[in-house]
Formats: sequence, structure tokens, C-alpha cells
Amino acid sequence: MSSEDDSDRIFKALADHRRRAILDAIKDEPKTTGQLVAMFPEIDRCTVMLHIRVLADAGLIVPRREGRERWNHLNALPIKEIHDRWIGDYARNAVSMMSRLKDALEA
Amino acid sequence: MSSEDDSDRIFKALADHRRRAILDAIKDEPKTTGQLVAMFPEIDRCTVMLHIRVLADAGLIVPRREGRERWNHLNALPIKEIHDRWIGDYARNAVSMMSRLKDALEA
Repeated sequence: MSSEDDSDRIFKALADHRRRAILDAIKDEPKTTGQLVAMFPEIDRCTVMLHIRVLADAGLIVPRREGRERWNHLNALPIKEIHDRWIGDYARNAVSMMSRLKDALEA
Repeated sequence: MSSEDDSDRIFKALADHRRRAILDAIKDEPKTTGQLVAMFPEIDRCTVMLHIRVLADAGLIVPRREGRERWNHLNALPIKEIHDRWIGDYARNAVSMMSRLKDALEA
């Protein structure tokens, strides 16, 4: 984890369900700002753009400009750093096992 | 991830740097509430207990009572679920490689 200020920005960005939904939308492939605006018709354009900016300021979205389009890429590195902060090498296998067990119990 | 309400609770709990410090303190082994209060002399006892309760409500701390002591255990499962939500099997290797590269560049 870089610094606690960075962590504050990351967790505050993730604390909003619409911002998490935006990250879900670009998990598998980047999307343009226009595509994201179209995917969330219940939110007005300016609010979607504001959410994208909060995510970019937190380092969770990396924007790339191509001509007139702005492509929003997920940056998974801060999310991996959250994981590594509290789940060390030692705990990794135990946590994976518990996670599979939980999935099996819920299935 | 169980539900978006659970996610809200988790990220709001993690958005405070003192609560993150409490999780750091119990990462390797559980601590009693008294031990945690002693570790954060700059925060008063009631505030530490309130932070512990917020973390427990979010499922990040699992308390276990033993006699008169309350042992606070880290529950890493919600943290693994954050990771798995945005880092799929496909991205895992790429993200690990980027993380090692970043560490190497910063060293």
C-alpha cells in the first residue's frame, strides 16, 4: 500500500455502489465514457463522469485517450494491494479453502 | 460478494485509517480489546471499542469471548472477495507480475 492518503481515496471511491458497478462494467474490457453513460441510464451523464473521475483520482481507473474517445481501463493493482495487505502468504491457502467451502455450503 | 449492502459496510469500515490500523494489528494474531486499546494510546478507549464494533458489523473482525476476555480475530474472507470480484483468474498472473515489477522499480 503506497500511503494512507492513497488508501483513503481508494476505499472512499469503493464505498459507493454505483462506482463499484462502474468497475464491474470495465472488469473484462475497457469502455469509453460514452459507453458507460449508456450503461447507467438511471444516472445522469455528469454524475457518471464525476464517478469516473473519483475512480481515476483513486487510481482504480486509468483513462486512455484515443482520438475523440476516452477509454476507461480498470487498474487492478490497488485491489491486489488491499488483498496483500491483510492476506499474507501464510494465510492465502487457508482463506482460499474457506472461500471454496463457503461457496460449496451456499450452493 | 454477498450483497451491495454488505459491500457498503465493508468499504465504509475500511475507509478510516484507524480502523485499517486495527486490522493491521490483528493480521498475524488475534488481540484482546484491552490489548488493542493499549496499542492506540492516542485514541480513547470508547473510540477504539466503537471502531472494533464497526469492523465486526462489517464482518472484518470476528470476536470470540474467552472468560472475561474478548479476542478479536481478523476475518480475511471479505477481503478475498474484494480481490476476486475485480481480479479474475485470467488477470491474476498479469496483476501479480505488475505488482512485482512495481516493487522492483520502487526498490
